[in-house]
Amino acid sequence: MKGKIAAQGLKLSFKPYHLQLKHVFTLSGSSRTTTPVMLTKIEYQGLTGFGEASMPPYLGESHETAGRFLSSLNLSQFSDPFRIEEILEYTDNAAPGNTAAKASVDIALHDLVGKIVGKPWYKIWGFSPENTPDTSFTIGIDKSEMIRQKTLEASPYNILKVKLGSADDRQIIKTIRSVSAKPVCVDVNQGWSDRSEALEMTHWLKEMGVLFVEQPLPKEKIDDHAWLTERSPLPIIGDEAIQRHADVKSAAGVYSGINIKLMKCTGMREAHRMAELARASNLLVMIGCMTETSCAISAAAQLSPRAKWADLDGNLLISNDPFEGVKIINGKIMLFDKPGIGLNEKG
Amino acid sequence: MKGKIAAQGLKLSFKPYHLQLKHVFTLSGSSRTTTPVMLTKIEYQGLTGFGEASMPPYLGESHETAGRFLSSLNLSQFSDPFRIEEILEYTDNAAPGNTAAKASVDIALHDLVGKIVGKPWYKIWGFSPENTPDTSFTIGIDKSEMIRQKTLEASPYNILKVKLGSADDRQIIKTIRSVSAKPVCVDVNQGWSDRSEALEMTHWLKEMGVLFVEQPLPKEKIDDHAWLTERSPLPIIGDEAIQRHADVKSAAGVYSGINIKLMKCTGMREAHRMAELARASNLLVMIGCMTETSCAISAAAQLSPRAKWADLDGNLLISNDPFEGVKIINGKIMLFDKPGIGLNEKG
Repeated sequence: MKGKIAAQGLKLSFKPYHLQLKHVFTLSGSSRTTTPVMLTKIEYQGLTGFGEASMPPYLGESHETAGRFLSSLNLSQFSDPFRIEEILEYTDNAAPGNTAAKASVDIALHDLVGKIVGKPWYKIWGFSPENTPDTSFTIGIDKSEMIRQKTLEASPYNILKVKLGSADDRQIIKTIRSVSAKPVCVDVNQGWSDRSEALEMTHWLKEMGVLFVEQPLPKEKIDDHAWLTERSPLPIIGDEAIQRHADVKSAAGVYSGINIKLMKCTGMREAHRMAELARASNLLVMIGCMTETSCAISAAAQLSPRAKWADLDGNLLISNDPFEGVKIINGKIMLFDKPGIGLNEKG
Repeated sequence: MKGKIAAQGLKLSFKPYHLQLKHVFTLSGSSRTTTPVMLTKIEYQGLTGFGEASMPPYLGESHETAGRFLSSLNLSQFSDPFRIEEILEYTDNAAPGNTAAKASVDIALHDLVGKIVGKPWYKIWGFSPENTPDTSFTIGIDKSEMIRQKTLEASPYNILKVKLGSADDRQIIKTIRSVSAKPVCVDVNQGWSDRSEALEMTHWLKEMGVLFVEQPLPKEKIDDHAWLTERSPLPIIGDEAIQRHADVKSAAGVYSGINIKLMKCTGMREAHRMAELARASNLLVMIGCMTETSCAISAAAQLSPRAKWADLDGNLLISNDPFEGVKIINGKIMLFDKPGIGLNEKG
């Protein structure tokens, strides 16, 4: 039969999954042992791009919300996956919020496009793979004996990360220092309340070999963060305050740098744009993660040559990773010459 | 024989060329009939990327300076063309200035990389090709009879561009309006001196169906441009004031938008970055050109889906274009699904 064959559209599918954490995860008083994620696929002409939405409960997304959002999308209307801007604009405009669910579409689309051109995204973006930073490795808040043990277990990593924000802050740092002299990053998750005490802590933390402090005060306290950033001997990094591209501009003069996470910012494309804008705004770039499989971690790692610091240990903290991707070798993120985000499904 | 074969590096070569203009080109009192360009090639594993430096004499580059700059580069040290950031950083740091010569390396490298992945850059950047704007077509300053004739000859184009900045400004616009009602863009090339008169002109030009005014006052008059931009009924676009990425930040609050030209900003990569930063800064984006072959025009056209306006007529004004690339169809820039910047050498 003669005539045009209708171009096949993109086929999006998704599957709920529960990540099993190796250790109980404690954060500002709440604890959990699993994290819900949504694993996505975009299929096109025999190729499959993989994506993921990681949804720690305190951020408001869930299997239910992501399922509803992803079901509402009609990607089959797009017969050319290279219309990335248009497809992601459509996705972003489909509903407000849902940033992790949006990231699961963005990551799968990037993986697919990278597979079509046969190149990893760090190459498409023009980065040199040896410029990846070391990743930090998170030491969960725990009793002193457990902190010491976890610190020792972190021996493959060159930078430790610890969550502070309680009366035990100095004790936690001292406990780590009792067994390790490695550089430490501190994430306060808005846990401090007084800017003068925060400033005093940054001086003490600098003495203790800390590299930077993430989101020390409540994100609404913009003037206090600006005050602290101006005086602190350590860089002050915005995390909760910096969700998407529009927030980067407001970070200049308030923070020394920003923590970019795919799940906050809707994915690789906006993350790349945020990193570029941060660079243009003289803001330091950190790239972070949630508890995630190697899918979202490998996606974030593509951008890591552009970052000063990386906290991409989310896949190292789970016991049921369905993928293999980016590796950490001698503490440093290793990117391989594999198309897209560089994943294999585990057999 | 066993052992590793040394990876072959990039091979850069270049050739001086003289563009023949169809019409004598008059700009602020000087006239010329040719423009010197340098045609470059980067060869790698049997593929060739094409580049170009266009060097109108008043900008300070020449066959001699470009030849000296390009000869000083050692691209054979790079065996992976995907290290775009690193290669272009090396090129940019090799000497100050030389922005057109640098663009000739950038364009050839992008053409090469696009050919390796088998995709045009507008696709690699994720743009939808139908979002290209119409290009304007320049009506050179001339006697009234010739302006009328050139305006009629511009019938394939939907937007006219005219260079103002003399006592004849109103007469020139009236002459065009005597034969055409098409929208007109005005480029003053810093030719006006008084901001109040400039404001008065913008009101009159708006009445006459003009779309915007480029660089009305000397670029040093930052406060006057800001004053004018705030009051003008037409967008005020910075051109001479906006050379490279670092200039975009300073354009916010001073201009309504910026004119990005590959020859000013060192090429496609920085142009793309400038367009993104402009968007983040709520600046309108125009993409312009010098007198150029279809090589540099096709390179700039890859970015044009991201621009509100395009002035990419440089190749239409010459009689000895060695390339075929992007086409103008019904006045609109047409991008094709051809790898890199989408060129053919004419037979």
